[in-house]
Amino acid sequence: MGKKVLKFGGTSVGTTERIMHVANIIKKEQSTGNKVIAIVSAMSGNTNELIKLSKEISEEFNKRELDVLLSSGEQVTCALLAGALIKLNLKAKSWLNWQIPILTDGEHTNARIINIHIEKINKFLDEGGVAIIPGFQGISKNADITTIGRGGSDATATAVAKIFNADTCEIYTDVDGVFSSDPNKIPVAKKIDKISYDEMLELSSLGAKVMQPSAVQTAMMYDIPLEVRSTFTDRIGTKIFSQENIDYTKSVTGVAYSKDDSKITIIGVEDRPGVAANIFEPLSKSQINVDMVIQNISSNQKKTDITFTVKRSDVSKTKQILKDNTKIKYREIIHNDKVAKISIVGAGMVSTPGVTYRMFRALSDESINILAISTSEIKLSVIIDEDNTLKAIKKLHTIFDLD
Amino acid sequence: MGKKVLKFGGTSVGTTERIMHVANIIKKEQSTGNKVIAIVSAMSGNTNELIKLSKEISEEFNKRELDVLLSSGEQVTCALLAGALIKLNLKAKSWLNWQIPILTDGEHTNARIINIHIEKINKFLDEGGVAIIPGFQGISKNADITTIGRGGSDATATAVAKIFNADTCEIYTDVDGVFSSDPNKIPVAKKIDKISYDEMLELSSLGAKVMQPSAVQTAMMYDIPLEVRSTFTDRIGTKIFSQENIDYTKSVTGVAYSKDDSKITIIGVEDRPGVAANIFEPLSKSQINVDMVIQNISSNQKKTDITFTVKRSDVSKTKQILKDNTKIKYREIIHNDKVAKISIVGAGMVSTPGVTYRMFRALSDESINILAISTSEIKLSVIIDEDNTLKAIKKLHTIFDLD
Repeated sequence: MGKKVLKFGGTSVGTTERIMHVANIIKKEQSTGNKVIAIVSAMSGNTNELIKLSKEISEEFNKRELDVLLSSGEQVTCALLAGALIKLNLKAKSWLNWQIPILTDGEHTNARIINIHIEKINKFLDEGGVAIIPGFQGISKNADITTIGRGGSDATATAVAKIFNADTCEIYTDVDGVFSSDPNKIPVAKKIDKISYDEMLELSSLGAKVMQPSAVQTAMMYDIPLEVRSTFTDRIGTKIFSQENIDYTKSVTGVAYSKDDSKITIIGVEDRPGVAANIFEPLSKSQINVDMVIQNISSNQKKTDITFTVKRSDVSKTKQILKDNTKIKYREIIHNDKVAKISIVGAGMVSTPGVTYRMFRALSDESINILAISTSEIKLSVIIDEDNTLKAIKKLHTIFDLD
Repeated sequence: MGKKVLKFGGTSVGTTERIMHVANIIKKEQSTGNKVIAIVSAMSGNTNELIKLSKEISEEFNKRELDVLLSSGEQVTCALLAGALIKLNLKAKSWLNWQIPILTDGEHTNARIINIHIEKINKFLDEGGVAIIPGFQGISKNADITTIGRGGSDATATAVAKIFNADTCEIYTDVDGVFSSDPNKIPVAKKIDKISYDEMLELSSLGAKVMQPSAVQTAMMYDIPLEVRSTFTDRIGTKIFSQENIDYTKSVTGVAYSKDDSKITIIGVEDRPGVAANIFEPLSKSQINVDMVIQNISSNQKKTDITFTVKRSDVSKTKQILKDNTKIKYREIIHNDKVAKISIVGAGMVSTPGVTYRMFRALSDESINILAISTSEIKLSVIIDEDNTLKAIKKLHTIFDLD
């Protein structure tokens, strides 16, 4: 008899009919003898609707109250799913963030789970109950409601799986699993049966929206086997576990892309030691995540150009911080939103020579200009013109035998 | 410097624009030096929408989970109103049922408030803060969310006013105050400037939907001055306080009606001691509220007919209980849904002879048959054919000088 955490995303609980369907999935799971904890998102559309209401009141809506507002969405789903399970004659109960409690640390709208009290829920599971827990939220040490960022229900699921020592954590969603590329853009993209945490982490950081990166990280740290699968079909999903359990036959597992990035170039910066630190320190202090950085070789001995990428939503804040920065001198700041980041990911890359070369060659063959490059052990990302996104993904998908 | 409880109903907070308007009412109130606690309902339509979702899952949706579900509505309004006040540069904070806490007793969906912790909120008021509290809910001693019945936000408001020792409790709603009859049906109905708790209690029990009866009762028991007024105009509303502070110039204050009742007749019951107890005891045990009871004089010495009224929603349950009751013998049970209860209410009635006679005479003049009668110190109710409702109200409104 095992213990399973099942997480159901917004589309999986988007209507009462779907909630009944989810209740049947849980019933089936419990009837095989497993103890079940279900984590639920808000019904699809609900969170956006609540955000819209808050913005009608203020674009800078108070963050404490935003957390109170948004956390209501998962509360609704918890109650409906518990009611649906009870209708199926199961013992079930919703447990709200403060009833458990789920303790968090950090600022409003961006907290992180630090502990979850397990005694009461474990007792309930022992008595044959199904526990329903709202994703995306917790309470702070001051007993304020806190949320843990969009997509945070995945993070709740892996945190619950870790703290309750669950055997597996299944992420039920509206796709069949993790694909070698976006199946909506690349019809030949294939579902991946098995993938390592590292690869999944790179893929999800890079725009594959199947799972939230910090949730994958938690699963990796505590070696919790994940499975991403569809709520709407019986098909086997994608299993995510540690690298040593996977036989790699291919160097590249998937091709991801993201259109979240902007490229910012500071032209005519003084070329002297400490200038990069002076540029990036205030950005880091303002929680702006700088992704790729390129410093061009300067033809002029005293001046250089520095290019880096940030999330598009951070562009105006970034430019303002640069303008306010009295420690740096430069001629001009330009930025380009019309870029895309294309990444190839694969745990096999490290042991396969020539992957980097083959990627650059392939893009060059398609006359696609590379604007920036960033590499890691298991991933290789490039920034290109947004218009070339599809052409690049298709080409890379083909040359790395993913079709 | 006083302390005020302001309660805003569902239509008053039905859109974000209206919530901003409410925030301005609170700002104005606070700027005059008053400490303000605001009680809010769910945005209009929200509670019905949530009930609809629960019914899609099960007509007999689990009551504990229904409370979890429904309480989310006021949470949303609390957060939005707190955010709106903060936007107006006020210090404001939402306090949820479990954060205060508001302690309740009794069963799910029908609990009652037994205590509210005041220290933290009083401290916040002393610091110049506006406290926003969700109506309609609390937590049980097991820390489960409980709701206190439809319209329960009024009960929260008067309970808060009582426990926080507030100077007044203002009920903001979508009408100008309490009227001498339903202004939608009787165009000559007039707003009442002052009314006693007793009269208000009778009026609200009798179908005037302005305030929830148990809330008026709390205000009466603790002598909390109430004012019912419109959120959307600056007009003075209706002040509700104890009888001794009101000069009565009229014997009748208002005419109310309700179409919630059904008349049930048990024909051919044995006429012997204890039979009424045998009939009504099981109904009372099943929480069915029997309103008027008439036992006709029996022509046959051994048989009689017993007529009584119950809420329409209780009719089928009532008939089943009667059929299952082995202690009583009868020939037949009939019921009539097409009835209305018409009531005249006035604290001056007791000191004005002939009110009863004038009412019966007036109805007789209109050829309206009286099917049942019930009286109290300050009210007189009759059951008539539903078709005669409007004719009866108009006539009574006129003869008691209310036009």
